[in-house]
Order: sequence, then C-alpha cells, then structure tokens
Amino acid sequence: MILVRQEIGDVLRDFRLQKGRTLRQVASKASVALGYLSEVERGQKEASSEILASVADALDVPISIIMREVSDRISVLEGMRGFPDILPDDLVASIDAELVTH
Amino acid sequence: MILVRQEIGDVLRDFRLQKGRTLRQVASKASVALGYLSEVERGQKEASSEILASVADALDVPISIIMREVSDRISVLEGMRGFPDILPDDLVASIDAELVTH
Repeated sequence: MILVRQEIGDVLRDFRLQKGRTLRQVASKASVALGYLSEVERGQKEASSEILASVADALDVPISIIMREVSDRISVLEGMRGFPDILPDDLVASIDAELVTH
Repeated sequence: MILVRQEIGDVLRDFRLQKGRTLRQVASKASVALGYLSEVERGQKEASSEILASVADALDVPISIIMREVSDRISVLEGMRGFPDILPDDLVASIDAELVTH
C-alpha cells in the first residue's frame, strides 16, 4: 500500500536538506516539536494540515510544490507497481522494500 | 491558511460525483464509516494515509492523480493570494471565503 505520509515525509526532509537547514531550525521556526517533525519526516506520523502549512512556511516552499512533488513520487511508485509481471523479480522486490522502508 | 485536508476533501467528493457514486457506496467499498468519509469530504477530518489509499482504491483513482489535483487547486489558491493588492476587494473577499468555507 502506498502511504502518502511516507512521501510527504521524504519530500519535507529533501527540501529541508536542499536548503541546508537542521531539523531543529525548521521545528523551531514552524513552532513544532522537534521529535514530532522528525517522526513526520520518517513517515511515522501523519502531519495535520496546520502542521504541514506551518512547516512549508518555515521551509519557504509553497504547499502546492510539496504536494506536486509528492504526487510525482507516488506516480513513479504506482507506475512501477503496475508492471510486476514484466519486471525482474529482484526489481519488484526492491520496489516493495522501498515502499516499506521509505 | 491553506489547509490540505479541505482540498483533499473537495477532490475526493468531485471524483466521487464524477463517477456517479454515493457516499454510502464508496464508504462501504473502502470499509470506512459513512460519517467519517462525509467529514473527510467536507474537510473537517484529516484522512489517514491508509484511509486515503482505501478511498482512492474504492474510487478507482490513483492516489497520484488525487494528489496532483490537490496540488493544482492549492497552486491556484496560492497564486491568487499572492496578488491581494492588484485584485478587486470583492474578489479577494471571495477567495478568502472560499478558503474558509471550502
């Protein structure tokens, strides 16, 4: 099952690293607990819409860009999962592993 | 503040109506309580990633398409809010109303 929170977490972390900011800096600017933001980035907690707006603002990235990136990544995962029969078994396994651990 | 759950709710409802399905049909197929799905559609409840995957599946719409549509709608809202000074006051007011009630 593709979980949106895992992709949102990855995208938030990637934007944060791209901008060279620490978890602590973003959590503080967004007025979010550091442990909570860390769990969101790891896909372990759902971010409420208010938290998402706050973190996007702290990162100076429009929410639409975050959701667009989330959509693009899910689209790749969906596309790859649509062809399990013509892909080598080890690639299918690695996609499944990606979906679980990511 | 732009709230992702309001756009997700709108998009889920629009896809459901587009496909001519009732709340009851989709809730039942997705194994989600009818009242809960109704609240999600109205932007009153956050849908967990599991519920979102389940509802997307029940609607036969890939999650990436749902998130893409959410991103597009938020992008329009963000774009319009970026120009409050050059827009007529009544249009700004109607955008704000849209953001609150939608």
